[in-house]
Amino acid sequence: MSSTTTRESSRAITASDAAARLMDRCKVLALCTEKPGEILRTFLSPAMDEVHQTMRPWMEDAGLRVSVDEAGNLRGARAAHHSPTAPRLLIGSHLDTVPNAGAYDGVLGVLMGLALVEESADRQYPFAMEVIGFSDEEGTRFGAPFLGSRAMVGELNGDLLQCVDSNRISVAEALHNFAATRPEADAPALSPQTAGYIEFHIEQGPVLESRNLPLGIVEDLVGQSRCSIEFHGTAGHAGTNPMKLRKDALAGAAAWMTEVEILTKRVDDAVATVGQIAAEPGGVNVIPGIARCSLDVRHRDDTVRTALVRAIFDAAQSIAEKRGLRVNTAQYHEQPAVRLNANLVAMAERAASLSGHPAIRMSSGAGHDAMVMAAHVPSAMIFLRNPGGISHHPDENVAEDDVAAAIQLGLQFLAQFAAQVKEKDHA
Amino acid sequence: MSSTTTRESSRAITASDAAARLMDRCKVLALCTEKPGEILRTFLSPAMDEVHQTMRPWMEDAGLRVSVDEAGNLRGARAAHHSPTAPRLLIGSHLDTVPNAGAYDGVLGVLMGLALVEESADRQYPFAMEVIGFSDEEGTRFGAPFLGSRAMVGELNGDLLQCVDSNRISVAEALHNFAATRPEADAPALSPQTAGYIEFHIEQGPVLESRNLPLGIVEDLVGQSRCSIEFHGTAGHAGTNPMKLRKDALAGAAAWMTEVEILTKRVDDAVATVGQIAAEPGGVNVIPGIARCSLDVRHRDDTVRTALVRAIFDAAQSIAEKRGLRVNTAQYHEQPAVRLNANLVAMAERAASLSGHPAIRMSSGAGHDAMVMAAHVPSAMIFLRNPGGISHHPDENVAEDDVAAAIQLGLQFLAQFAAQVKEKDHA
Repeated sequence: MSSTTTRESSRAITASDAAARLMDRCKVLALCTEKPGEILRTFLSPAMDEVHQTMRPWMEDAGLRVSVDEAGNLRGARAAHHSPTAPRLLIGSHLDTVPNAGAYDGVLGVLMGLALVEESADRQYPFAMEVIGFSDEEGTRFGAPFLGSRAMVGELNGDLLQCVDSNRISVAEALHNFAATRPEADAPALSPQTAGYIEFHIEQGPVLESRNLPLGIVEDLVGQSRCSIEFHGTAGHAGTNPMKLRKDALAGAAAWMTEVEILTKRVDDAVATVGQIAAEPGGVNVIPGIARCSLDVRHRDDTVRTALVRAIFDAAQSIAEKRGLRVNTAQYHEQPAVRLNANLVAMAERAASLSGHPAIRMSSGAGHDAMVMAAHVPSAMIFLRNPGGISHHPDENVAEDDVAAAIQLGLQFLAQFAAQVKEKDHA
Repeated sequence: MSSTTTRESSRAITASDAAARLMDRCKVLALCTEKPGEILRTFLSPAMDEVHQTMRPWMEDAGLRVSVDEAGNLRGARAAHHSPTAPRLLIGSHLDTVPNAGAYDGVLGVLMGLALVEESADRQYPFAMEVIGFSDEEGTRFGAPFLGSRAMVGELNGDLLQCVDSNRISVAEALHNFAATRPEADAPALSPQTAGYIEFHIEQGPVLESRNLPLGIVEDLVGQSRCSIEFHGTAGHAGTNPMKLRKDALAGAAAWMTEVEILTKRVDDAVATVGQIAAEPGGVNVIPGIARCSLDVRHRDDTVRTALVRAIFDAAQSIAEKRGLRVNTAQYHEQPAVRLNANLVAMAERAASLSGHPAIRMSSGAGHDAMVMAAHVPSAMIFLRNPGGISHHPDENVAEDDVAAAIQLGLQFLAQFAAQVKEKDHA
């Protein structure tokens, strides 16, 4: 009993040191930017190369064989103990950023991979590990997200290659130019031994903070509907049209927006957002004849999401009829929900519990590399508490203690993954 | 009895002919424009000069002494019968337009003056008449409205003179340049004998049409509050923030807008309009952190209007508190209500009844020249039914029968005004 206590306590001290180092590294990488005064790092940019150059010695010191593939993904491999054909566990996230970013979104997950390799240097695992820093997840340069992970799973093709950046350079050209300067680079392929992908990421939301928990186990990434709703009434003079003779499109939109909130709150875990609104003609003294609204609806269950969108559209129709308005509703984009690997999710949950940081299961409301990877590799995600839910902003933060908790969870996860590999070998 | 019938019927035929001529004249004047393909006529413009040149022979043929004053107001005077110091009745409206205007707003009231002079050519009234075509009511050129009537009552001064048009020419410069080419022009003064101002105007609203009435007697022009309301919440990711943890500024604004409608409908004859709205940052997938709304509130009773604005501001505060938002409310412009002359309003009402076109009393929700004149001259206004309530639009219209009814009302009004002048002379 006393020996266990000592061992756990020494691991806690190590995790705490490792967390401090990880936080310092995030700050160092934040200096690699395309835009002085803020953090901005895009796909295949010089700032991204600077990150690679900065990380390479850290990774090599941890015993990783470091390379950058033809899609600009940073990769660092550690072989399995005495087994070149052993299964391979990928640990990573992305190294690119949105404009005026924080220092942790993406970067933290890559450095978590490195920290777990470092902290497990003395362990002899029956699986290979690969730390991955994806070259694009945010889509800042080309508008299209997930270019790094899509390249790795063979989905960077078709129309995606024709997307152009602000200099009218296409993805295809950018990749070609990059590869030309890196004759040694490998194609961005998944190793056939790949047996799992695990991604640590800040939550980018307030749920863990509101529950007073450092960590969350992501079991799925929500599906999403993007819609447009337009109410058409009759524009008119704000002074000469009595209230009861009006067909005010914005008043209709307002009634509908309150209904969106009511309907959505009735559905567990659903979110719906009207982020854009415009009234036309837009004069202070003119009754709006047209009101245009955006609508973003998300839920982990596609059937539930589809039903909610339908109910919200029906509410728009019914409000429009009651008010003598016309309404046009349209869903112009849909992204199905993605379920993560049940085995790895359960493993992460057990690891959380064993590391003394019981964590809730939750959905990710945002997209992540794990969403792309999950269709090809058993995948899991762990969220770290995000103070104030602030991300994509210079004030984005994460507590060092929570990073330490994530490292402890990660080490427990590696131990369990090892146990499962051994079981399979013996089966 | 039979003689009365014959006389009324012949007057009806005359009024109908006069109405047809008035409608034709509106169409002719609609050709005087600054912008081919649409009607646009602004203060002191060549198009306005063209209107004056077109109207001058019509007015002179009717026996009017025609002049254009230094503020560009078209004026046509007819002396009283055998009495150079008799009271003077002004009949008119404005000749300028908004961009892409209809053919009747303003112009109709000036031509009504001319029609009443023509139709009463054989009457010997104990008062002088003056047909007036104000040079600016819409404020299209300089942003500030009522320049013509303000000049006539001595209120075109101070900051108003410093307003500039899109060529950075000030009102003062424009007036100076205009006067330089018109050495013969008089100052835009009211005759000391002025005893009344009467203005015919299309309603610019749907009330008369909804009541199935051709004419309305305006007894007051509503007061107006212009306000801005800003809700401040917390911007955030549309996917990662559960509904109950949000501080959505636009959702707060929507709840408030529905409350604006409810509160306003409770107050007889009040109108309130949210004509402008903006959500920031304005991303499809971002919860709005700020929602900015305009608010226009009008009522004939300033106390009632002030109380309604207060209730609407209170509703904003209470909604903001309930939702954890901040709200800023501000009234940045206020225009008190204007009551028209009780004697002339009652006279117009009797005239309507005597002409066989019983009319309701109503408020004007829009501003008119009568609002400026009323502070200096006993004033009255008559509204003509406006199909669909459409104005400030090429589809703006008025029925010829309703114009005939207005002419019949106008002739009855002149007869009564004459009777009152005679009574006073004998008193």
